[in-house]
Amino acid sequence: MEGTEPVAKKKTLTLPRPALGDNRSHEKRLRDSLSGLYSQPLSLPLETAKRLPNVLKTSGFEIDVVTVSHDCGWDIADIAPKQGIEGVYGLGIDLGSTSVVFYLVDLEKGRISRTVSLENPQRRHGEDILDRIIFAGRGGLGTLQREVIELINMATLTLCKDEGITPASIYYSTIAGNTTMCHFLLALDPSHICKEPYIPTVNTFDLLRPDQLGININPQGYIYVLPNVGSYFGGDLLAGILSSEMSKREEISLLVDVGTNAEVVLGNKDWLVACAGAAGPALEGGILSCGMRAKEGAIERIKISPQDLSIQYSTIGNMPPKGLCGSAIIDLLAEMFKSGLVDPTGKLIPDKDPERMRQIQGEWAYVVADKTETKDGNPVYITQSDIKNLIRSKGAMYTILNVVIQSVGIDFDDIENFFVAGAFGNYIDPEQAITIGMLPDIPLERFKALGNSAGQGAVKVLLDRHGRKELQQICERITYLEMNVRGDFMNQLSGALFLPHTDISRFPTVKRKLGL
Amino acid sequence: MEGTEPVAKKKTLTLPRPALGDNRSHEKRLRDSLSGLYSQPLSLPLETAKRLPNVLKTSGFEIDVVTVSHDCGWDIADIAPKQGIEGVYGLGIDLGSTSVVFYLVDLEKGRISRTVSLENPQRRHGEDILDRIIFAGRGGLGTLQREVIELINMATLTLCKDEGITPASIYYSTIAGNTTMCHFLLALDPSHICKEPYIPTVNTFDLLRPDQLGININPQGYIYVLPNVGSYFGGDLLAGILSSEMSKREEISLLVDVGTNAEVVLGNKDWLVACAGAAGPALEGGILSCGMRAKEGAIERIKISPQDLSIQYSTIGNMPPKGLCGSAIIDLLAEMFKSGLVDPTGKLIPDKDPERMRQIQGEWAYVVADKTETKDGNPVYITQSDIKNLIRSKGAMYTILNVVIQSVGIDFDDIENFFVAGAFGNYIDPEQAITIGMLPDIPLERFKALGNSAGQGAVKVLLDRHGRKELQQICERITYLEMNVRGDFMNQLSGALFLPHTDISRFPTVKRKLGL
Repeated sequence: MEGTEPVAKKKTLTLPRPALGDNRSHEKRLRDSLSGLYSQPLSLPLETAKRLPNVLKTSGFEIDVVTVSHDCGWDIADIAPKQGIEGVYGLGIDLGSTSVVFYLVDLEKGRISRTVSLENPQRRHGEDILDRIIFAGRGGLGTLQREVIELINMATLTLCKDEGITPASIYYSTIAGNTTMCHFLLALDPSHICKEPYIPTVNTFDLLRPDQLGININPQGYIYVLPNVGSYFGGDLLAGILSSEMSKREEISLLVDVGTNAEVVLGNKDWLVACAGAAGPALEGGILSCGMRAKEGAIERIKISPQDLSIQYSTIGNMPPKGLCGSAIIDLLAEMFKSGLVDPTGKLIPDKDPERMRQIQGEWAYVVADKTETKDGNPVYITQSDIKNLIRSKGAMYTILNVVIQSVGIDFDDIENFFVAGAFGNYIDPEQAITIGMLPDIPLERFKALGNSAGQGAVKVLLDRHGRKELQQICERITYLEMNVRGDFMNQLSGALFLPHTDISRFPTVKRKLGL
Repeated sequence: MEGTEPVAKKKTLTLPRPALGDNRSHEKRLRDSLSGLYSQPLSLPLETAKRLPNVLKTSGFEIDVVTVSHDCGWDIADIAPKQGIEGVYGLGIDLGSTSVVFYLVDLEKGRISRTVSLENPQRRHGEDILDRIIFAGRGGLGTLQREVIELINMATLTLCKDEGITPASIYYSTIAGNTTMCHFLLALDPSHICKEPYIPTVNTFDLLRPDQLGININPQGYIYVLPNVGSYFGGDLLAGILSSEMSKREEISLLVDVGTNAEVVLGNKDWLVACAGAAGPALEGGILSCGMRAKEGAIERIKISPQDLSIQYSTIGNMPPKGLCGSAIIDLLAEMFKSGLVDPTGKLIPDKDPERMRQIQGEWAYVVADKTETKDGNPVYITQSDIKNLIRSKGAMYTILNVVIQSVGIDFDDIENFFVAGAFGNYIDPEQAITIGMLPDIPLERFKALGNSAGQGAVKVLLDRHGRKELQQICERITYLEMNVRGDFMNQLSGALFLPHTDISRFPTVKRKLGL
């Protein structure tokens, strides 16, 4: 981040005092003192202007000035007698449908100062975002907006209290969310996002003033909602592109956000192609019998010994297991496949381990943790149907990736950086994901977990005022492939509904591992 | 005004309907349809965006769009189904300390549609603007602001009602006033305007939103307050420069606003020099025994026969006379001088017309209309003291003009256009003003009354969106001479306290007229 200029900054100035030979207005005096420091136009909002005579009088013309950048220059957003500005902060927000993560950024020091993650209160209207869109259509849009804004204001107060500042010290907020979340935030009609032909109301948002949304930061500041590319390609992923810098690199990179929807961007400094498609909720553990979110008690890693089929697992927080989170599910299927507990079609082989294979609710299941090991006395297992769902999801994911690379006529081998975005992406073991044929079989060192790339992108825009322009340029450069209208997706999917694939030559390392 | 582009305009568009092969957001669809028509960036304010889905749905994608220009592009300020926009109007305001004149401008037709002039309610706090500054300093600033904004809203309602539109059809308002009036309007501290070294709080105002001031026009529109150059050189005069186009002309022009303060601009397309100085209120009739504003019953023209010294006068509205307005006062002094009723020092010659020369309140006076002729039975006259005051004012005016032309090393003869601004300027007879030595002795055809140039300038900015930039450039080009700090003013003034001047060679036509 060094060498970049934040969206808001503080200057300390000593203004020349008025005299008969220098009777410039207070406003002109201030502008002239600043103009050498700025190459762009400076605006003086009315509220700052009103305070100017008194601040100059009480300060002896030694003042602190906070300027905030916008579309065509800088606003003189705040003035105070010298050392009267307690700080210059930004607030980056990763507006997720499940969790909302807040980053309080000290713009003078150029670093994240505090962070807090809160549950999205909109979840009460549906875990699935589609349920929330339906709720919005039944008059709930205002409620959805209010809930998220109240959350933002609450988080702001908490962060400010911990930092020992007031919200007036926050002069800019950047918000990265998926297209639907942005529509909820701004109370824009989201109803066409989920209906063919999948039309968002707005992709590119104007800079907003805090009072337009009722967000409690400095009223002379700005709110920037990161743009979307399409209904299924939102500002969260654009933030990831920004954060990965893939759009500036010479070599080809691929960025994928693994979730219910698989969102993919492929490209380099010269071109960018994106698409999104439904992978289904199974990859995140959503609909599996014992699936759960990645929190305390979730099994996150699994090993099965090919020799004696014994299981080793670890849980989040080292607690007794409660269920399987996304990373464990991928581990589990890969380990079971390598150990011969499932065949390439995904069928369980009960004879292979009669002790762990049981009939549960009328179908075969494989028990990972017995009821004696778990916290609530219920076993943790995976059923035949779970595996079917999982294979459909991993197959969809692989197919989406394949369609994208084919669309530009390259091979997976041409991808130098394979960025995996999102919280979930952090925990996936690429080797296991390759084993089940979810990710392509390329050298492991090319996989790079981006962490919370949406949040990082939002923070980056705070620390580099050119970030907004860069994002807009990325938006304009991206060619968006509509997966829903591409026949090749369905044609290719069937081959991917195998472990790892009907065409094993695509997965040479897996082939070797299996001793084929 | 032909060939110029107004600050707000309406377009009728047919947007392509969404389809699987064209799933741009509503916002992008609208922007793309407009972008060919605009070379500058287009913004979509949140309030417009919110209405977009419904307007598109109900209109069958045939819509009217109103765009409003601002510092760095255009706002899509309004949308409606085709033919759903009732009009696109602007409101030009000449914010005078006595009267406020409103111009409702039809921006589609490019012309003033209606106009109304209302008394400034701030007058209750003092006819003299200094009294209002004192009132502001005693906690009255908010009251002064509220009064003028209520007046604007009342006038807006009246004009809209007469025009058959709602205030939402007004998308832009331009306001030209002197520096102090602008400070009252925006509730900016005016206290340093009238105290050495005469510092305004703000000269150049940012574009404002109507709700920042509580002005009831379309909330997505803008308010533009014309900039000031200094404490005694306001937006009203800049509007006059714009209206006269003197800053674009090859030849040298001089613009003067004759009043209590004489405000002068001299220059051409290459250079502009300005100054302002106190001429005293006598020229406007303010402090004279029988002076009055130019309204019904005011004597406006006077002739005295050199032969028999008989008087002919005309009054506004052909009513019985009540007093003398500014133009009559200049006429009167000139006629009296030519007839020998006053000598070159301004001394009355009672023997010349014993009938009309009388002692009134302990000094000599000359009676213009006897009590039998007047409405209230009081005579209309001018006293020796009145003439003294008048000569001091006309002398100050001439001296200011002379200092300005000397500062750039030219003669009065070099001035091709002599613009006289302000309502008062409309009524001055230049020949009479030359006779008393108030205006320089140049060919009469070079004098041009500008009428309400402040209002005209405000209207011009509505009809030509480049007007704002032009005004800003004029501000930056003007060299302002501070009359208060120039010794030559006082040195030259004494020569101008004669009729027409101690150096009669400066007034050759007057010399001829007097038969010298």
